[in-house]
Amino acid sequence: DGGGVESLDYEVIENFAYREEQAQRGTGLAAVFINIAVENFAGWKFSMTFDIIQKSYIAGFFVYVLINLALVYSSVYIITQFAPAAAGSGIPEIKGYLNGVDTHGILLFRTLIGKIFGSIGSVGGGLALGKEGPLVHTGACIASLLGQGHLAVAIFAAKVAKIVVGVAIFAAKIAKNWQSELANHTDCRFIASVPLKLCLLFLGGSTKYHLNSRWFQVFKSDRDRRDLVTCGCAAGVAAAFRAPVGGVLFALEEVTSWWRSQLMWRVFFTSAVVAVVVRAAMGWCKSGKCGHFGSGGFIIWDISDGQEDYSFAELFPMAIIGVIGGLLGALFNQLTLYITTWRRNHLHKKGNRVKIIEACLVSILTSSISFGLPLLKKCSPCPDSDPASGIECPRPPGMYGNYVNFFCSKDKEYNDLATIFFNTQDDAIRNLFSAKTINEYSSQSLLTFLVMFYALAVVTFGTAVPAGQFVPGIMIGSTYGRLVGMFVVKYYRKLNIEEGTYALLGAASFLGGSMRMTVSLCVIMVEISNNLKFLPLIMLVLLISKAVGDAFNEGIYEEQAQLRGIPLLESRPKYEMRNMTAKEACGSGRVVSFPRVVKVSDVLSILRSNKHNGFPVIDHTRSGEPLVIGLVLRSHLLVILQSKVDFQHSPLPSDSRGGGRSIRHDSSEFAKPVSSKGIRIDDIHLSSDDLEMYIDLAPFLNPSPYIVPEDMSLTKVYNLFRQLGLRHLFVVPRPSRVLGLITRKDLLIED
Amino acid sequence: DGGGVESLDYEVIENFAYREEQAQRGTGLAAVFINIAVENFAGWKFSMTFDIIQKSYIAGFFVYVLINLALVYSSVYIITQFAPAAAGSGIPEIKGYLNGVDTHGILLFRTLIGKIFGSIGSVGGGLALGKEGPLVHTGACIASLLGQGHLAVAIFAAKVAKIVVGVAIFAAKIAKNWQSELANHTDCRFIASVPLKLCLLFLGGSTKYHLNSRWFQVFKSDRDRRDLVTCGCAAGVAAAFRAPVGGVLFALEEVTSWWRSQLMWRVFFTSAVVAVVVRAAMGWCKSGKCGHFGSGGFIIWDISDGQEDYSFAELFPMAIIGVIGGLLGALFNQLTLYITTWRRNHLHKKGNRVKIIEACLVSILTSSISFGLPLLKKCSPCPDSDPASGIECPRPPGMYGNYVNFFCSKDKEYNDLATIFFNTQDDAIRNLFSAKTINEYSSQSLLTFLVMFYALAVVTFGTAVPAGQFVPGIMIGSTYGRLVGMFVVKYYRKLNIEEGTYALLGAASFLGGSMRMTVSLCVIMVEISNNLKFLPLIMLVLLISKAVGDAFNEGIYEEQAQLRGIPLLESRPKYEMRNMTAKEACGSGRVVSFPRVVKVSDVLSILRSNKHNGFPVIDHTRSGEPLVIGLVLRSHLLVILQSKVDFQHSPLPSDSRGGGRSIRHDSSEFAKPVSSKGIRIDDIHLSSDDLEMYIDLAPFLNPSPYIVPEDMSLTKVYNLFRQLGLRHLFVVPRPSRVLGLITRKDLLIED
Ligand SMILES: Nc1ncnc2c1ncn2[C@@H]1O[C@H](COP(=O)(O)OP(=O)(O)OP(=O)(O)O)[C@@H](O)[C@H]1O
Ligand SMILES: Nc1ncnc2c1ncn2[C@@H]1O[C@H](COP(=O)(O)OP(=O)(O)OP(=O)(O)O)[C@@H](O)[C@H]1O
Ligand SMILES: [Mg+2]
Ligand SMILES: [Mg+2]
Repeated sequence: DGGGVESLDYEVIENFAYREEQAQRGTGLAAVFINIAVENFAGWKFSMTFDIIQKSYIAGFFVYVLINLALVYSSVYIITQFAPAAAGSGIPEIKGYLNGVDTHGILLFRTLIGKIFGSIGSVGGGLALGKEGPLVHTGACIASLLGQGHLAVAIFAAKVAKIVVGVAIFAAKIAKNWQSELANHTDCRFIASVPLKLCLLFLGGSTKYHLNSRWFQVFKSDRDRRDLVTCGCAAGVAAAFRAPVGGVLFALEEVTSWWRSQLMWRVFFTSAVVAVVVRAAMGWCKSGKCGHFGSGGFIIWDISDGQEDYSFAELFPMAIIGVIGGLLGALFNQLTLYITTWRRNHLHKKGNRVKIIEACLVSILTSSISFGLPLLKKCSPCPDSDPASGIECPRPPGMYGNYVNFFCSKDKEYNDLATIFFNTQDDAIRNLFSAKTINEYSSQSLLTFLVMFYALAVVTFGTAVPAGQFVPGIMIGSTYGRLVGMFVVKYYRKLNIEEGTYALLGAASFLGGSMRMTVSLCVIMVEISNNLKFLPLIMLVLLISKAVGDAFNEGIYEEQAQLRGIPLLESRPKYEMRNMTAKEACGSGRVVSFPRVVKVSDVLSILRSNKHNGFPVIDHTRSGEPLVIGLVLRSHLLVILQSKVDFQHSPLPSDSRGGGRSIRHDSSEFAKPVSSKGIRIDDIHLSSDDLEMYIDLAPFLNPSPYIVPEDMSLTKVYNLFRQLGLRHLFVVPRPSRVLGLITRKDLLIED
Repeated sequence: DGGGVESLDYEVIENFAYREEQAQRGTGLAAVFINIAVENFAGWKFSMTFDIIQKSYIAGFFVYVLINLALVYSSVYIITQFAPAAAGSGIPEIKGYLNGVDTHGILLFRTLIGKIFGSIGSVGGGLALGKEGPLVHTGACIASLLGQGHLAVAIFAAKVAKIVVGVAIFAAKIAKNWQSELANHTDCRFIASVPLKLCLLFLGGSTKYHLNSRWFQVFKSDRDRRDLVTCGCAAGVAAAFRAPVGGVLFALEEVTSWWRSQLMWRVFFTSAVVAVVVRAAMGWCKSGKCGHFGSGGFIIWDISDGQEDYSFAELFPMAIIGVIGGLLGALFNQLTLYITTWRRNHLHKKGNRVKIIEACLVSILTSSISFGLPLLKKCSPCPDSDPASGIECPRPPGMYGNYVNFFCSKDKEYNDLATIFFNTQDDAIRNLFSAKTINEYSSQSLLTFLVMFYALAVVTFGTAVPAGQFVPGIMIGSTYGRLVGMFVVKYYRKLNIEEGTYALLGAASFLGGSMRMTVSLCVIMVEISNNLKFLPLIMLVLLISKAVGDAFNEGIYEEQAQLRGIPLLESRPKYEMRNMTAKEACGSGRVVSFPRVVKVSDVLSILRSNKHNGFPVIDHTRSGEPLVIGLVLRSHLLVILQSKVDFQHSPLPSDSRGGGRSIRHDSSEFAKPVSSKGIRIDDIHLSSDDLEMYIDLAPFLNPSPYIVPEDMSLTKVYNLFRQLGLRHLFVVPRPSRVLGLITRKDLLIED
């Protein structure tokens, strides 16, 4: 049954509980406020990358392998033992969440913690994966948790975070002594999550009518959480790439399924604050407090000093890059699909031990290749460059810049493979994007790197560690992009061409070919490279690579979602649905329904007899005709059964006492907990007296679920279901009368 | 009744006509293809700005005033006599169209022509208005016309366009002889509309299931047109600002009401092609074929060589700019609202003559002020600058650059007011944004310009000419922005500050305060200025100005829409709707309905007796109970009445002959013409024999309109109506049975 996947309920249930909520305005104000002040812990992201350069290469190799292994082991251990939902990138799950299906545990606190520390391990451990996907998931988790307003959780988290940071710093210092040079590459981006709190504040504040009621309201329903999670995703991307507009567009294009125009403004607000805060963090880092991080600036891979202009002759090689990107991207999706399927069916079934061993083996393999291959490569002599250009050659390894000296015998030599392979991912990409370094790389080195890294990325994908696909994608893409760039430089001699430009386009093309995003990728690429002049080129390349990729398979997130059993509803109905009616779709099985007043024992037996989550409630009119009075949810029935306060002795409706009813239940009892199964039916224990009593369901039902006539075509039903984000829809007989028509005029009510 | 406003019908009507359409795949392939090849004419935009500098200032003044007057007169004449729907910016109307209401004539061919030539006149005539709004409207018109595939129209248009261009060029040459210097500032952007055709091609092609059927399909329903118009808007902005991503976001944030994720990709595609084509046009223009235009480049107002960095101390004056923007923007909206209301109620009622006189008076006023005020201003001495900086002072007027010599007695002097006031808008903005020109403007000149231009912009708004608010907004905003910048330069002496940066922020803030867009404005501002580093600042300023503006009134487009009686449905329901039910909303009036088989005379009399546009059709089951079998539209009934082929003698349903029925009607007969009233009831003439016959409505009705139970709250009804873009909704009694439940599982049909 979908493996722990369950639908979310975005419907506004207009029963008493909802109306109570409306009345309890302004409560919890103080609680959320303190919450906000404390939850600074969140979103921490350390990518501790150990640039090891030894006097003894063999000892260095072992240290390198072991440190990587230790980091990866810690990551996979955390994931397997503590937070299984934190494995992978998390974007397919978040996409599913926003499409209306809940993957178990995806937004829990432990998942957040697992994700943060797991990706420190996996990225720090040098695996061929990135941290951007996990950051999106992290953002969504934080947003969702903030929405719950659990003060205790926040305080606990802050404490845990402090301890863990302490341990991490201690470990880093020890590692420093071990190695000749160690730079702990602290990202400082954790500050970037502060704005999420502001988003939360804002989510309430900007709407006209709710200025008082929602400002500090605690978000309890799936519907409220949906907006917060969208905000969180945007904040994640904005913080990861320092690309605020890209974050907004990513949330809009890739993750959300329902977009309301108010959301634009809120998501934008979150991103804007993220941008300002990231900028502040950058300023702070410039003073050297963040180790290697300082020189990054607000733009990650700035190429604004690169190629000035481009000519039409270049469009052809660029189109080729687009095609390559489409092909390699589609191949990547297909290979990872096969491997992940195989892993699920054979490897991961055998338990956590196998997962741990697998991750460790991948780590050793990755370390060996990235350390060993550059050793085999012969060094190249440094180019003759005037010192005014500011390019130094060779540079000591473990520092910014190109022309790394690694295992070179002569003085004026550098190792081009080490420059990209034996380096942090950020630096490797910066080196690949770099301008004014024509002919730095031999095509042989680039090809070697491309093949090896591609293979590693495919193998690494799907191991039980948090893993993003953005950075590996950029690595792969920029490598073949630069390769093409080398040929262009060779053949179009007269043009002023930088290989780095082609590397950028290559990166865009691979991401486009694999993820199939367009606008958001385009904006993200521009924002990370700070060169608006290439916008049309990036667009062109993305269009081609997406079109080529679409010819083969679906985007990586859709494929992964399918694989994980997350049933995403696409935005458009399938073609076959035109010829089906609603009645045909819901099958011919008997509808399981409840009468208005129902015996407790009947409720229990009906709930046990099936797995449905919603049931129609049927009453009778005075004249004895049946009448559908609403929909009751399994989860609400379970709450009623557990609390027992609504049981009554009489089998008659309790209309007369309706006033008192609402007092018996706190509205929060019906509030659905985030990503948890809620009460299970086996947890309910009722005495035989209880079983003989009755429940009047009237106050608990959703009195007006959406309905469709039986012969409406499934296309229209689909649109209704998908656009409104429903969970249940009643198929009813054709009506016998029309009581009125609603047109635009009826809905134009003036304030 | 809303003044010619009528709802659009986005519903898929699943009757025979629709199913026929499905069968007639691939027809019209050739037609659309030729259409595409020929419709090159569209989107032309000349802003012929006459930079007049005379030896005799008095003669010059008269020439200047007269040329402006002639241009404005031609514009207002075209609008009043030929295309009244082309007045104003058109964005509120397009917004309304995409929200589901049709303003009469808004997408007609004559409106397109009127818009293009009208805005040539109004912008060329030096009025305080812009051409960007009209370009958006133009884009939408072209898209909609392309969607109709009328070959004849296209060929005719191409011919008309050629002739008019010829005349325009001829006129320009004559004007050249008249004046000492004339530069016809041809925009070349007309080429930018080529991609619209490609968008059209693409609109069909990318969807999986329709690869054959829709590739060259002619777009006939409101639903198809909706996507095309959205595409057109994005293309308009992309071409106007050379801001492709900004175009996508503008379409998304400001104009559309329904956003489907496929649309993103299509709109993006259109914009991408626009970007590439604009780039091509720029390259072509560089060789000097477009007069003044060549030096523009792909970025309109490039400030990438400006300020490098900013410090936190600057955030305070920037916040102040945001506040000023919010205040002035809101004031602008309020003033224009009053003036437009007054115009509508007093001035424009009196007929076209008054409109023409009004526009001419405004033109004379504008010309006099922009020529006269700089004359009164004393010239300033040129700054001492090293020649290496490339800044020349003074420059001859009518050319690019700052430090214009206008009515200066000495040699080394310039007139700072003339530099911005007596100049084309593009150049004025470039001068305001310019870096390395600190202290070019005296605060007195800037203030004078600000006050005068603001007043002119308010007065000009609402005259019967095509008018955009973007460029005037940028002018106003950058003026006070630069003013604030001057103070900042004065008080924060140590910082490396450029006044131009503040001008850019000022422009953003005014647009934000008036139009209340966020993401799209932000991206547009970055794209026109090519400085990504200021993105966080622009975001900040926009957030503040929008928030401040929202405290006073609504955005300018919403206010104008309201004023013009375009009933926009906001994206969220009003708060009062929570306590209303569907039944209450649609009132207690008797529902006007039809039986299945109805007498022709009854149809006529019912249609005459009311103004409703949709009617339920009621049949009877075998057992004699009534049954609602669908909804029939007034427009379809009128088609049936006019064609008469469906009349029958028998008052019985014509089930047996159902097969033959579909042949009688070409599906195109029911296709709704764009923006036209269709058949009027008075046009139908029936003989008395005809009146005695019957019509079986069954084949013509929409068999399954959406239904809501009578006691559903209006909030939910609103969501359904708004999200699905409906026109009619049946309110029905509560159902007596539930035949089935539709859940996510039922909708997950595999191919
Ligand atoms: N009360 C009911 N009576 C009869 N059939 C039902 C009822 N509720 C659902 N069904 C049918 O049972 C099937 C699965 O129902 P189920 O309630 O598990 O929904 P689901 O798609 O799995 O979504 P969810 O995630 O909410 O469980 C569907 O085909 C649906 O038509
Ligand atoms: N067939 C009908 N019988 C009775 N009342 C109707 C009928 N159709 C519409 N109405 C009511 O008449 C009012 C106006 O109807 P009308 O059909 O003019 O719609 P509208 O809102 O103006 O939209 P449109 O632009 O489609 O005309 C609405 O309040 C609606 O409830
Ligand atoms: Mg289920
Ligand atoms: Mg009407």
